[in-house]
Amino acid sequence: MEKLRICLIGAGRVGKVHTLSLKNNIPDAELVAVVDKDEEAARRLAKEFELKIHFKDYEKALDWGKFDAIIITTPTFTHKTIAVSAAKAEKHIFCEKPMALNLEETDSMIQEAKRAKVKLQIGFMRRFDRGFLEAKKKVKQGALGEPLLIKSIGRGPGLPPEWAWDIKKSNGMLAEVGSHDFDTLRWFAESEFEKIYAFAGNYKCPQIKKKYPDFYDHAVVTVQFRNSGLGILDIGCPVGYGYDARMEVLGTEGVIFVGEIEDNQVTVCTKGSGAVSSIYNSWRNRFKDAYIDELRHFVDVIKRDEEPFVTGEDGKKVVEAVAAANKSIQIGQAVSLPL
Amino acid sequence: MEKLRICLIGAGRVGKVHTLSLKNNIPDAELVAVVDKDEEAARRLAKEFELKIHFKDYEKALDWGKFDAIIITTPTFTHKTIAVSAAKAEKHIFCEKPMALNLEETDSMIQEAKRAKVKLQIGFMRRFDRGFLEAKKKVKQGALGEPLLIKSIGRGPGLPPEWAWDIKKSNGMLAEVGSHDFDTLRWFAESEFEKIYAFAGNYKCPQIKKKYPDFYDHAVVTVQFRNSGLGILDIGCPVGYGYDARMEVLGTEGVIFVGEIEDNQVTVCTKGSGAVSSIYNSWRNRFKDAYIDELRHFVDVIKRDEEPFVTGEDGKKVVEAVAAANKSIQIGQAVSLPL
Amino acid sequence: MEKLRICLIGAGRVGKVHTLSLKNNIPDAELVAVVDKDEEAARRLAKEFELKIHFKDYEKALDWGKFDAIIITTPTFTHKTIAVSAAKAEKHIFCEKPMALNLEETDSMIQEAKRAKVKLQIGFMRRFDRGFLEAKKKVKQGALGEPLLIKSIGRGPGLPPEWAWDIKKSNGMLAEVGSHDFDTLRWFAESEFEKIYAFAGNYKCPQIKKKYPDFYDHAVVTVQFRNSGLGILDIGCPVGYGYDARMEVLGTEGVIFVGEIEDNQVTVCTKGSGAVSSIYNSWRNRFKDAYIDELRHFVDVIKRDEEPFVTGEDGKKVVEAVAAANKSIQIGQAVSLPL
Amino acid sequence: MEKLRICLIGAGRVGKVHTLSLKNNIPDAELVAVVDKDEEAARRLAKEFELKIHFKDYEKALDWGKFDAIIITTPTFTHKTIAVSAAKAEKHIFCEKPMALNLEETDSMIQEAKRAKVKLQIGFMRRFDRGFLEAKKKVKQGALGEPLLIKSIGRGPGLPPEWAWDIKKSNGMLAEVGSHDFDTLRWFAESEFEKIYAFAGNYKCPQIKKKYPDFYDHAVVTVQFRNSGLGILDIGCPVGYGYDARMEVLGTEGVIFVGEIEDNQVTVCTKGSGAVSSIYNSWRNRFKDAYIDELRHFVDVIKRDEEPFVTGEDGKKVVEAVAAANKSIQIGQAVSLPL
Repeated sequence: MEKLRICLIGAGRVGKVHTLSLKNNIPDAELVAVVDKDEEAARRLAKEFELKIHFKDYEKALDWGKFDAIIITTPTFTHKTIAVSAAKAEKHIFCEKPMALNLEETDSMIQEAKRAKVKLQIGFMRRFDRGFLEAKKKVKQGALGEPLLIKSIGRGPGLPPEWAWDIKKSNGMLAEVGSHDFDTLRWFAESEFEKIYAFAGNYKCPQIKKKYPDFYDHAVVTVQFRNSGLGILDIGCPVGYGYDARMEVLGTEGVIFVGEIEDNQVTVCTKGSGAVSSIYNSWRNRFKDAYIDELRHFVDVIKRDEEPFVTGEDGKKVVEAVAAANKSIQIGQAVSLPL
Repeated sequence: MEKLRICLIGAGRVGKVHTLSLKNNIPDAELVAVVDKDEEAARRLAKEFELKIHFKDYEKALDWGKFDAIIITTPTFTHKTIAVSAAKAEKHIFCEKPMALNLEETDSMIQEAKRAKVKLQIGFMRRFDRGFLEAKKKVKQGALGEPLLIKSIGRGPGLPPEWAWDIKKSNGMLAEVGSHDFDTLRWFAESEFEKIYAFAGNYKCPQIKKKYPDFYDHAVVTVQFRNSGLGILDIGCPVGYGYDARMEVLGTEGVIFVGEIEDNQVTVCTKGSGAVSSIYNSWRNRFKDAYIDELRHFVDVIKRDEEPFVTGEDGKKVVEAVAAANKSIQIGQAVSLPL
Repeated sequence: MEKLRICLIGAGRVGKVHTLSLKNNIPDAELVAVVDKDEEAARRLAKEFELKIHFKDYEKALDWGKFDAIIITTPTFTHKTIAVSAAKAEKHIFCEKPMALNLEETDSMIQEAKRAKVKLQIGFMRRFDRGFLEAKKKVKQGALGEPLLIKSIGRGPGLPPEWAWDIKKSNGMLAEVGSHDFDTLRWFAESEFEKIYAFAGNYKCPQIKKKYPDFYDHAVVTVQFRNSGLGILDIGCPVGYGYDARMEVLGTEGVIFVGEIEDNQVTVCTKGSGAVSSIYNSWRNRFKDAYIDELRHFVDVIKRDEEPFVTGEDGKKVVEAVAAANKSIQIGQAVSLPL
Repeated sequence: MEKLRICLIGAGRVGKVHTLSLKNNIPDAELVAVVDKDEEAARRLAKEFELKIHFKDYEKALDWGKFDAIIITTPTFTHKTIAVSAAKAEKHIFCEKPMALNLEETDSMIQEAKRAKVKLQIGFMRRFDRGFLEAKKKVKQGALGEPLLIKSIGRGPGLPPEWAWDIKKSNGMLAEVGSHDFDTLRWFAESEFEKIYAFAGNYKCPQIKKKYPDFYDHAVVTVQFRNSGLGILDIGCPVGYGYDARMEVLGTEGVIFVGEIEDNQVTVCTKGSGAVSSIYNSWRNRFKDAYIDELRHFVDVIKRDEEPFVTGEDGKKVVEAVAAANKSIQIGQAVSLPL
């Protein structure tokens, strides 16, 4: 079988995760080129993974064009332009979350991908995690009756890069970190967001406050779905103690818990220490298999010409929810959707 | 040492729990009388515990007066009248949560107790649970830096009696079940509620809807404290699967989890069953020791003439928070405190 | 109802635990006297608990005789003499584990108690622990099919007093610590020990080696029951990290786990710390309720004139098993029972 | 880089696991041929994985010879002949556990591999599990002081194929299942087995008893190491409830636990169900990554011309321990090593 040829746009941390997945775990696809504004970064990654070609500008890569699909891992504010250009060039698109900055952008991306008949998949890797999938399956089977409350936690140990501190460029931590949680809520509720209320604050990053007074490092959000279901999410970044992504679904007939913070099934007890277990220190460890599986899925849907499990529409709904939550923080009141 | 003489007002479930604590675990106090509008219930409890006297009306008990303190476990809407009368009769008061229906009532109770120089303790037994206490101690010691988010879960397996379904008589499930959670949030935040937002719904009790259209069986509440700390609580009743009272404190330097749902350290695995552990089926099991310890404390503070650890002021703040949350549910917007 | 009058013989740590149980939790019994060779210890305990009388010699206490039952918490090598004398004086006997030093002693105790028609209960408190009882119930109900392997762990944080280091006076740590584990194995197997093999060593107490060359601080024992079931126990003392008493029953249809080392449902996570839970630091915390319940049972069986749940025969079988294990350690081969 | 060419000998379950690892996770190696006595099985696997060639006899494969290394996953009693022939043909050898039937065989294999200067790695995949490795690292760092007791559990849900029921062909379940546990004990003890005592029985397989009267499905083994450390292992097969591979190291300064039975971080609670978690149902899931990593390591040591982490010597010591345990079962007494 012909290997699917992929071009990576964005040579940062998550870009490297995808590169490793392609190299080590997806034998029927291969990374053939890498693009990064920081040309040195592109060159380094190309060298490390023996890629023959790298680019500073994605337009050049599209001009070259010897690939079937792109993976976008650049900052949020660049997603739309890159994705639309790629769709025009008839390249399939895997786009990291958050999908884009606003609904105009997400709509352009969705429409252009549709017009070009290319796949558009959003990087909500939790949807590929064994535990989340198992929970979803159980909920679908009715193990909990009707789900009525979905809770999600998204906390990361460190701060994202500076561009993400600027709420205008990133939509803030609710977009950077919380996109996964909004998606989880919506995925399990099987309903659309109707009303959102959020509190947030900058509790740990006084140094950021001056330059970015809107920056918040922790937020709590409650939502109501159209089907009247409820949701709670809280996000925090940086939380220091580790990477924490747990969820809970309360239904009319029971509850289901997904995820834990301990990461390697080892507990050490010494005098006065208590029982000590390691904590996940990164999304890379916590969702190692899910990152592989989402890319595996992307390659499969292209090859089989099917719809991806996580679509542009899914990405768009989260962008809208984040916008509503940010507005709620700003005005101090609940916000109704659609915006 | 002379035994402290106590009169129980309310011969229901929690009344019996306190009776057992007094009989089996607090040797320097004794229950000497019981009062219940349902005279048969009073008679039964008196017989079972070999009490010489029981009453239908608390006024009669106060007329008789041969006791030092009362325990109030009657419906919320009766608390204020009983407590004020007891204070006037110079009896110390242990009052179950929720303290009362509104701030006028709580203020009367506090003032009258103060004037009469009697103790007034509210039944927030979680404050006496070993785990909650240990967590609080760790937070005070600064183990988590500054607490910035406090989360609490309050879910019970069954429904309270019918009077509690009427939000006018009970303030609803946020009062009946959630009082503990509001108190936990405030206890750990060491700050007062500033703003509260709540969603609620009746997801499981269609039969109640007709008679009590305001009734909700699940609610999620987010709060902001004056010190800018955040809080989340969710309550549900009846949840069926068990009694669930867990909490979490996220601070600037770490996180602490308190409580679990498994109740007896036994796990059974058979073919196809998975690993199965029992779940707490009642607050009586989950907080068995805490119920004893809060009463032990009540007896101690009377004997030593000290302030109780959980005061009328604590009860009042929770009544206010519940009122704000109920108002938020009603108007669909956040509510600022004080009311 | 008349209170059952009890005399405590042995004013040490476990003696005080029983004293507290009697005072705070068993209203229909009362401690009326205490005996200790160390008269000062007896006086201190008598004073603290407002007992009117204390003795240096148990014979004097028996001469005085104004009590119904005794609790023996003295060193093992004294149990037999005290118990036999008490039985002759027609006092009911609660005797701490290990029951006695050898089978002659256990037989005398059993026979004398029988002759005098007094109750003889051995202090295997694990049999009164909620978790152990729940597990036993499940096994009896056939949840695991036929039990075929029973495993028990007995580890304590510190060393017992010096007399216990002398294997001639105590039968060593397998008696002091492991008696509970042998009893657990036999209780769940519902069969008698047939063959025992043991390894042991002194790994942590070089200072004891000189004076007591036979002393071992850790041991592993495998047993075969007459019904062909298997057992494993390992004991260690001092282990430093905490008090650890867990068990496991493997049956033909499944497995059951009992106990955990974490003690208060609190987990703290900070940067680099991992997830940290407290560990039980003492049998007093781990089996707090079981200590109360075994004494509650003792009082009940006396009042109702029934057989205790844990009899002298149970104590004897453990003494025999410990002797076999010690012999196995000595000769380096398996030992068959009965001895 | 040239891909390492590998020939698989044995197209059964574990053979397929290794095939999948090579295909999906080890890009610099490739499976080029498969051998199986059951030619249909060889053909099927060849077809499924698009291999150009397959063989009925390993000799034919060696004659063909266009590969660098072999993976042996055939029944134990064939290991030695295949491995020695492969070594003579200068092929590197990855050999599944148990390494061979007896010490003569293991010695031949080791010597021939040495003479031919080919790598010989034994399939103790637990040594590549993240948790086991983390525990080993902590022990090496002295986190527990000196390890003094190592415990290992090895239980599988189903029975191995019939050849393994014949103790003469397989050395029984202690070899088939317990090899991993013996290796774990020795790896952590860093000392050699000195004395071994074992009990065993056939508790669940009466149907096997007639044809194979020596067959046992459960066994418990205690060992003493030369450095005086202790070990316990228990194995069972079939246990029905799942695949269970946990271990524990008790040292002079603490204890470490590795592994759990719950497999996907999902817990479901419904009315009356308790809290239910899935259990590992197979070694394939429990040690998914370890199986990949051991093969990754095998490829790496060949490419870098280094010694494997798990050598023939390691395999041999386990064969010896199993033999001693089987002898102990037979004679009913402890057995000293070396045999």
